[in-house]
Amino acid sequence: MSTTRADLEAMDAADPLARFRDRFFVPEGITYLDGNSLGCLPKAALDRLDETARVEWGRDLITSWNVHGWIEAPLKLGGKLAQIIGAEEDEVAVCDSTSVNLFKLVAGALSLRPGRRTILSEPGNFPTDLYILQGLVGLLGDRAALRTVAAEDVVAAIDDDTAVVVLTHVHYKTGRRHDMAAITRAAQDRGALVIWDLSHSAGALAVDLNGCNADLAVGCGYKYLNGGPGAPAFLFVARRHQAQIVNPLSGWMGHAAPFAFVDGYEPAPDIRRELCGTPSILAMAALDAALDLFVEADMDQVEAKSARMCDLFIELVEARCPELTLVSPRRSTERGSQVSFAHPDGYPIMQALIARGVIGDFRAPDIIRFGFTPLYLRYTDVWDAAEAIGEVVGTRAYDRAEFRKVAAVT
Amino acid sequence: MSTTRADLEAMDAADPLARFRDRFFVPEGITYLDGNSLGCLPKAALDRLDETARVEWGRDLITSWNVHGWIEAPLKLGGKLAQIIGAEEDEVAVCDSTSVNLFKLVAGALSLRPGRRTILSEPGNFPTDLYILQGLVGLLGDRAALRTVAAEDVVAAIDDDTAVVVLTHVHYKTGRRHDMAAITRAAQDRGALVIWDLSHSAGALAVDLNGCNADLAVGCGYKYLNGGPGAPAFLFVARRHQAQIVNPLSGWMGHAAPFAFVDGYEPAPDIRRELCGTPSILAMAALDAALDLFVEADMDQVEAKSARMCDLFIELVEARCPELTLVSPRRSTERGSQVSFAHPDGYPIMQALIARGVIGDFRAPDIIRFGFTPLYLRYTDVWDAAEAIGEVVGTRAYDRAEFRKVAAVT
Repeated sequence: MSTTRADLEAMDAADPLARFRDRFFVPEGITYLDGNSLGCLPKAALDRLDETARVEWGRDLITSWNVHGWIEAPLKLGGKLAQIIGAEEDEVAVCDSTSVNLFKLVAGALSLRPGRRTILSEPGNFPTDLYILQGLVGLLGDRAALRTVAAEDVVAAIDDDTAVVVLTHVHYKTGRRHDMAAITRAAQDRGALVIWDLSHSAGALAVDLNGCNADLAVGCGYKYLNGGPGAPAFLFVARRHQAQIVNPLSGWMGHAAPFAFVDGYEPAPDIRRELCGTPSILAMAALDAALDLFVEADMDQVEAKSARMCDLFIELVEARCPELTLVSPRRSTERGSQVSFAHPDGYPIMQALIARGVIGDFRAPDIIRFGFTPLYLRYTDVWDAAEAIGEVVGTRAYDRAEFRKVAAVT
Repeated sequence: MSTTRADLEAMDAADPLARFRDRFFVPEGITYLDGNSLGCLPKAALDRLDETARVEWGRDLITSWNVHGWIEAPLKLGGKLAQIIGAEEDEVAVCDSTSVNLFKLVAGALSLRPGRRTILSEPGNFPTDLYILQGLVGLLGDRAALRTVAAEDVVAAIDDDTAVVVLTHVHYKTGRRHDMAAITRAAQDRGALVIWDLSHSAGALAVDLNGCNADLAVGCGYKYLNGGPGAPAFLFVARRHQAQIVNPLSGWMGHAAPFAFVDGYEPAPDIRRELCGTPSILAMAALDAALDLFVEADMDQVEAKSARMCDLFIELVEARCPELTLVSPRRSTERGSQVSFAHPDGYPIMQALIARGVIGDFRAPDIIRFGFTPLYLRYTDVWDAAEAIGEVVGTRAYDRAEFRKVAAVT
């Protein structure tokens, strides 16, 4: 009684999210399982981009800052995003990159916890997050210290010197999901804050920041949110911290009166103080159109479909490929919207899959990674991907010379 | 023998840059003198944007990082920009916002001058620049100090504790141009560095960074460079500083091996170390198309036309409106590509001009400001603007109630 393609066709027919697929450009003949790196293009984003460039920039020019509300874009988009990550609309701003936003919030967390020096994270965290922490600590000298401990030891490592714990909600490589509520509570019990990087969960899971009493968060606009390559990122500051947090990247957009052009910086009283320079309005336009789709979608349905697709994928791939080792958690509640397997020939296997139109990605040394985006993928895509993987791995239909190539590069 | 409109028509007919106007969307019936705030839309930018979204993002998706060279965009655009600001192509990167880039370079300048604490600037500098300096000093505590002295006293104020002087090449309000070569030399004679903010000069003047032996610079992509609202900004680091300068915003794009995904940050050996997070590829695409126009243009011709237009504008406006006080330097070598006048009723005057299709802007308390963009403006635009100003000011054809309105706001 194993699962058949017909079973998955039936699931597609019954899928309440199926109607969203047609709102995206999904390339013909491709099974795109890399939406965790770059989401597909929403059709509305293409139109919005053209309209923003042609009419707002081209025709209305400088007046668009007011007439078309450009000046409000970071908070307008933040308000939409807030709805899908369990925040209030005045707690989220869309701006800068994830890296820049993390820098702001870690420095901000230190400002909220004077006397504490330690920034706690885990080895193998998303690399740019660790790099940013290292850069900030380098700048602050003996006023801050970075400590990394294994994920399972993080809670025990929080002590009286811990200002802030910086963790990625869903691990970029394995898909492991941290228990946001439990870790947040444990940190707060010891007087520390947590910054959650939602880059690999926002848009794929029913993130509930306020349900977890989260303090601070950042995240990425171009993965599951489908905002376009290098889309603006976002940040979340719980209301209770907004009046105190200090943003060291104090650009004009974060000023209480940005158009007064006075010499002295005075932070806006609210989330606006986390803004810095002028955002790209073109990039904002594309992300705005992408967010509109999420405002229509039910995030519980999104998370449920994600879990079901990933569960099916594991079942179907394992039935075909005993050679692959599951690296992701088996239980969907402990996992994000991606599934990773390890295999010594991971690199050439992924190259062979891509050549067959199944797009996932490879992460050194041996991980093949598949992301599942509930809004535009079908259950039958899961089937087709598993079939292709079974064929490539089972028949060793890949070029092992490719493995030596990547081994020399990385 | 005063100047007539026919004289300006003759200048347009002889203008070697006249052919560029047709490469832009310039709104009908508008005399757009606000390109110093937001440049007009290059026609190629609209096409490039559509192609980048539709084909690169929509069809080729994640493969575009390599196939379409997205990963090289910051340096590719930097190389083009370098040609018009007197830099080598490996000395400029396009990334982040001007504010973020200034933060990086001021922190970087402190890293290059250990033991020196003072950051020197001038009151009334572009506000976001001062705000960024205040934010950095706030973060660094007693390891840095901000000192501002009047423009004419800056050179004398440089002392043994001065790490870096931060000045805007052309003043945003008055259009006054600093002597880049002389100030750079004076600072270097005292062991200090200078960061030039080129936001109001790049694309309008023949900036010559290496000719002035400049150390560091930042600038904006959406003013005279016509890269679109909130376009990516840029930064310049002279080759001699690239191996030593520390970028505290050490995101993954600045890593020596960004795709190795290792835990430890190691800065790229070159200008790449000044990159941080993932840039908006859509925003980059528009700016890239805009920069292509400058690569075609002769910047000496651009600066010469700018000077001539501004000189004519001053002559024509002063002949019509003795009530206006010239705020900008009269000599074009001491001025950028803008002309500002003061008048107690500046706000309602500008409102009346905008209503007539002459778009400039107002800066509190009493300045009306007009920017001249050599690539898409005609000499006859200078005439038409001066005529409109003469009519509005001379006949007091503006609503003085507007003045009280703005007085209440600012």
